[in-house]
Amino acid sequence: MAQDYVKMWQDLGINLENHDCLLKALADIYQQIYLSQKNRPEGMKYFDFVISEAHGLRIKELLEAKKQGKKVIGTFCVYVPEEMILAVNGICVGLCAGAQIGFDEAEKVLPKNTCDLIKAFIGFKLTQVCPYTESCDLLVGETTCDGKKKAYEILDKLTRKVYVMEVPHRKTEASKELFLKELFSLKDRLEELSGVKISVESLKEGIKIVNEKRKALMRLENLRAYDPAPISGLDALLINQIAFYDDPVRFTQKVNELCDELEERIKKGIGVKPKGTPRIFITGCPFALPNWKLHHIIETSGAVVVGEESCVGRRYYHTLVPENFSSVEDGIKLLAERYLKTHCACFTPNAERIEDIKNMAKDLKAQGVIYYSIQFCTPYLFEAYQVEKEINLPFLKIDTNYSMEDVGQLKTRCEAFIETL
Amino acid sequence: MAQDYVKMWQDLGINLENHDCLLKALADIYQQIYLSQKNRPEGMKYFDFVISEAHGLRIKELLEAKKQGKKVIGTFCVYVPEEMILAVNGICVGLCAGAQIGFDEAEKVLPKNTCDLIKAFIGFKLTQVCPYTESCDLLVGETTCDGKKKAYEILDKLTRKVYVMEVPHRKTEASKELFLKELFSLKDRLEELSGVKISVESLKEGIKIVNEKRKALMRLENLRAYDPAPISGLDALLINQIAFYDDPVRFTQKVNELCDELEERIKKGIGVKPKGTPRIFITGCPFALPNWKLHHIIETSGAVVVGEESCVGRRYYHTLVPENFSSVEDGIKLLAERYLKTHCACFTPNAERIEDIKNMAKDLKAQGVIYYSIQFCTPYLFEAYQVEKEINLPFLKIDTNYSMEDVGQLKTRCEAFIETL
Repeated sequence: MAQDYVKMWQDLGINLENHDCLLKALADIYQQIYLSQKNRPEGMKYFDFVISEAHGLRIKELLEAKKQGKKVIGTFCVYVPEEMILAVNGICVGLCAGAQIGFDEAEKVLPKNTCDLIKAFIGFKLTQVCPYTESCDLLVGETTCDGKKKAYEILDKLTRKVYVMEVPHRKTEASKELFLKELFSLKDRLEELSGVKISVESLKEGIKIVNEKRKALMRLENLRAYDPAPISGLDALLINQIAFYDDPVRFTQKVNELCDELEERIKKGIGVKPKGTPRIFITGCPFALPNWKLHHIIETSGAVVVGEESCVGRRYYHTLVPENFSSVEDGIKLLAERYLKTHCACFTPNAERIEDIKNMAKDLKAQGVIYYSIQFCTPYLFEAYQVEKEINLPFLKIDTNYSMEDVGQLKTRCEAFIETL
Repeated sequence: MAQDYVKMWQDLGINLENHDCLLKALADIYQQIYLSQKNRPEGMKYFDFVISEAHGLRIKELLEAKKQGKKVIGTFCVYVPEEMILAVNGICVGLCAGAQIGFDEAEKVLPKNTCDLIKAFIGFKLTQVCPYTESCDLLVGETTCDGKKKAYEILDKLTRKVYVMEVPHRKTEASKELFLKELFSLKDRLEELSGVKISVESLKEGIKIVNEKRKALMRLENLRAYDPAPISGLDALLINQIAFYDDPVRFTQKVNELCDELEERIKKGIGVKPKGTPRIFITGCPFALPNWKLHHIIETSGAVVVGEESCVGRRYYHTLVPENFSSVEDGIKLLAERYLKTHCACFTPNAERIEDIKNMAKDLKAQGVIYYSIQFCTPYLFEAYQVEKEINLPFLKIDTNYSMEDVGQLKTRCEAFIETL
């Protein structure tokens, strides 16, 4: 990244030494994992560029928008309605983190048996390496799991910018009403922060932008159903990760351009791997940037990943929000209904998730399911037992963390699994 | 226990072989830990008897009550309102379990990194050793922590008797409304199960009985403030554990009789340990029966335990419910208000708990605080950091499980801590 970002980072309070280590490590890993792939679509060039400028150009854009009065709002969960953030003229960025940075620092304030996703976002803050976190005017947390819920208390002590909304854990009428009220409270907070009142028009516009983004991501998912797969699971994952922080309109356009190219590939029978390559479907915990470990292992073990039932995957882009409503209240009700169709393991019971997995695995013509859980993620670890029982497909459970220590062992297990398909 | 219970256990579906092992182990441990204590109050004889008949006479009482049409309702959490269970003429029994039984079986359906309290109640069910669980007509779970919430899904598959009520995780008006609605839904479920409609009178009667129980337990806590301590922490813990399954009226009477005796002891300066014995206050996770490990370690290391900020402790008997209301609805509103004054770490933020700890430690003249967490209990492990920072008393953090493997190490740590006081 160009030298002239240094001042920008300094002004944001970034610890340049730590940050340099991070960027160098990322550049190396990206080269090894991404740029070494063969037969990549041309359309991936944009996403390669976005990643290379993740801490540069995009941060510059955020800071310029802030100068114009826009607010930057960080989130950690797909239950936080991006549409409402856009409706107050804000910018939404996902802050979940996927790298083992600052863990020594994080473990001074968090229990050791905390999942790596949480250790990472606290570690990023404690070591001052994330220009997104530092750019945020507000951090919106939620009550989805015990670990995140309690970690936000710590994050608030560190930033004084955390707002927590309650996500219920049942799908009863009473729980739905609570969630709706929480969206109204969030609306008040966002309006207070931005000085912008949400109008029917701005809410419709926000919904339209996010609907278009979700449509594009769903279109991409559908194209992964073809054999040979026109795009690698790694590349599709990257796009799903970038969805959380790129400019949504530009991003949507680029995803659609890529999809045009993939459709051409499909017509011509061009794939990233030969026709007949074993097809793996992944379900479970989110893959926050730059967590590419499992996809990389699978795709260098003779298979291709064809889909993700994950927050970085289908749980983000399922279901659109109707665009024909006539009051802000009605629009927010439609948002609440849509968001509660997200089938996170924080809910009990959560049988709909199993249906989603079955349907997706079938639609994407998967031959095997890999259940991914981040070590200590109680909700997803628990559901693994039910999923395993109900899925009529070869099933492999991977319980891992962000470290590279178990890569050899995981590769052996994945290879053995793929051979049976 | 008398031989004539065998048929009763068999009829309940108890696995006699497993159950025999459990009872023998318990009898030995009880002898070692409890009956070996010196200077115990006379009044403990009743509680010794209750424990010796825990799987005998009390189960016989439950089954006789069931014959007369009463329903037995199992609970796992102090947010489930016992008052409402009594108001439908039901019997409430606490089902959290404090022993490492059936863990091999439990680990086939639960993640390995699950806390021992959860493994225990699932293990008890899978090995069919708990006559309480087997006597229950309904098991009322809640959404307090990720582990229990997801474990109830499994328990329901095993029993088909689980009803889950949502406990919110914030203390906003919207969350309070959700909790109130959940109490109304629970009322419907209890009325449906029992065929008994809750009336103002029956609700008042239920509230009165539980208020009296809580008053007696609070009276007992207050007497532990004296030096020399008139009762051991172990004995007080036992009483707090028995509170969850003994007949409430009889129990209250026996606790009050014991308190009368303790008041006499205090007047005469009689204690279980010499005046000036170091005084330890415990805060953290619940101690389900027969989890006596930490108290035993502390009290055989030269100190006395003077109080517990715990669900088996103050979080159970804090705050009474007003008895002057004129409709069932108003009574339930008062219950909801009372229960939400319970400061569990499942809430965010939960600063009130820290105030409770400070106040209790002061009132009970504690010289040191031991923070007890069950391994993998995310909410209490997280709060330990905040508690440690804000408590101005010597502080020791113990993160352990139900196994006896670490007893030597814990004893060394506790002894070293107590020496510094």
